[in-house]
Amino acid sequence: MPDLKYDVLGIGNAIVDVIARAEDDFLVTQKMQKGGMALIDEPRAEAIYDAMGPAVESSGGSAANTIVGVAGFGARAAFVGKVKDDELGRTFAHDIRAAGVSFDTPPASDGPSTARCYVLVTPDGERTMNTYLGAAQDLHPADVDPPQIAAAAITYLEGYLWDPPHAKEAFRKAAKIAHDAGRKVALTLSDAFCVGRYRSEFLDLIKTGTVDLVFANESELKSLYETADFDTAAKVLRGDAKLAVVTRSEKGCVVVSKDAMIEVPAAPIRKMVDATGAGDLFAAGFLFGLARGRDHRTAAQLGAIAAAEVIQHIGARPEVSLKGLAQESGLPV
Amino acid sequence: MPDLKYDVLGIGNAIVDVIARAEDDFLVTQKMQKGGMALIDEPRAEAIYDAMGPAVESSGGSAANTIVGVAGFGARAAFVGKVKDDELGRTFAHDIRAAGVSFDTPPASDGPSTARCYVLVTPDGERTMNTYLGAAQDLHPADVDPPQIAAAAITYLEGYLWDPPHAKEAFRKAAKIAHDAGRKVALTLSDAFCVGRYRSEFLDLIKTGTVDLVFANESELKSLYETADFDTAAKVLRGDAKLAVVTRSEKGCVVVSKDAMIEVPAAPIRKMVDATGAGDLFAAGFLFGLARGRDHRTAAQLGAIAAAEVIQHIGARPEVSLKGLAQESGLPV
Repeated sequence: MPDLKYDVLGIGNAIVDVIARAEDDFLVTQKMQKGGMALIDEPRAEAIYDAMGPAVESSGGSAANTIVGVAGFGARAAFVGKVKDDELGRTFAHDIRAAGVSFDTPPASDGPSTARCYVLVTPDGERTMNTYLGAAQDLHPADVDPPQIAAAAITYLEGYLWDPPHAKEAFRKAAKIAHDAGRKVALTLSDAFCVGRYRSEFLDLIKTGTVDLVFANESELKSLYETADFDTAAKVLRGDAKLAVVTRSEKGCVVVSKDAMIEVPAAPIRKMVDATGAGDLFAAGFLFGLARGRDHRTAAQLGAIAAAEVIQHIGARPEVSLKGLAQESGLPV
Repeated sequence: MPDLKYDVLGIGNAIVDVIARAEDDFLVTQKMQKGGMALIDEPRAEAIYDAMGPAVESSGGSAANTIVGVAGFGARAAFVGKVKDDELGRTFAHDIRAAGVSFDTPPASDGPSTARCYVLVTPDGERTMNTYLGAAQDLHPADVDPPQIAAAAITYLEGYLWDPPHAKEAFRKAAKIAHDAGRKVALTLSDAFCVGRYRSEFLDLIKTGTVDLVFANESELKSLYETADFDTAAKVLRGDAKLAVVTRSEKGCVVVSKDAMIEVPAAPIRKMVDATGAGDLFAAGFLFGLARGRDHRTAAQLGAIAAAEVIQHIGARPEVSLKGLAQESGLPV
């Protein structure tokens, strides 16, 4: 087995978020599904940008946010994802590297521009996302470097990788390399609509053990098993998955394994400002805990404090040291 | 006199902020003067960006922030400033227009890229700025449209306009048009180092009545009169200026006129997260109050609540409706 070089390596769509506040009316007028992630083309991206309010730009991307969170806890982290060699691509690369993450995927020199996600944050703190995948569509299996994957304790993959044409091949390639090297593979289901698009494939990944750990929120879980009943879905998940964590917003999370169903409460917050990145940062804390050999409850507590940090400000990347936060909370780092 | 179309029109450097948190050590290593604004060239801009942590991008520019604040109170506002026709220039234009501000200055089609300010926010909330002026250097008197200036009750100008080569001519042209049309002219001294560069010219603008209203913070005032004693400086200012407001951070502000020296306390805050834009937003509230015919104390209170909003989050543009905040505070809008 090669030397362990990374605690967690993530593969995902490399995206810069363009974030604005919006009233619920705006979502209605723009025919946006509140709380969801819609894929859009470039003309629609421009139309949304023209219509939306003053924005801030911040690097995003679900798995990328998670990996930045893992690094923020003090772990060794790497990311694989495709940007273009343009202004936003340089911004993405700067931000992830400046967070201490190894990021070596070569940028595309031509083709569509770096991916952007137009995020509308309503007064209740909920976020509604519109993603123009751009250069992220060009992630190929060749971008997955076998020695790098084999050197990571956990390879973390996002369900959103099913959207670009070749990224799922990259996903499968990475999962095989990781397992052949005796490593673990984790998957987030990403979004209820994404689950709707790729349900049978995601179920297959879980049931065949292609992934060792699954992250889902309540609506993704319900979408996966096409039921409105949480307990029913959780029970089936327990039969299907080796290990899963279901996040339930302010109700905390449930760690689902063959041995036990462990409920862990959410960390207290003052006010939810922007839900963007809540699930991503929960996964960061949980993965960090696992990589450090903590028990499931402790790992979930680490996830909870990271999620609590990120929803109390605009943007999906932590603004303070997660390591410091964990220490203040008396959690091991 | 032409019809009044705008309550406040601002002229300033059109800049996009690139904001990151930094430890005080970083400022020392990078030889940055804490709390100041330094002008930098493009190689230095790149070196700073490479060295700084993960950042968010948000439209900025001192007078532009003020004008966005004026619009946020519900007033009619316009801005004049130069961007390039590039990605950041489109971002700047989008953000200011989406805030409800008229912005018609044609972008430069060639020459240097849109201006960027690298803002380092230290744990105490203080901000240290490094500005690459780029396309903002190309603001010319021809960008000042006489009928537009004449249609604004107050024309607001930033001292930073003395840095680009032709912007001060634009400044003087605008001031003359405004006065010829029976309008008012306001100036912010911008920065203590900026005052150091252009002290005699700024004093001349004040003493000759080229400006009717001056905004300064404590260190700018002390730099203007080259004294360490606030009371001495305030007394001389009272003799020189028609009307002035001196902001003193958590100590509130003093409105200095021939008739009176009115002290107005700062609005309460929970925590100073990022001081960027404090002075800009104070000016927004005060100018809005004046444009609505409020007394000086009320105008200063409007300034205080706008400043309090902007220092409690990252970035120099308000995140909530200033009109709403004023209403909650029982102030007239």
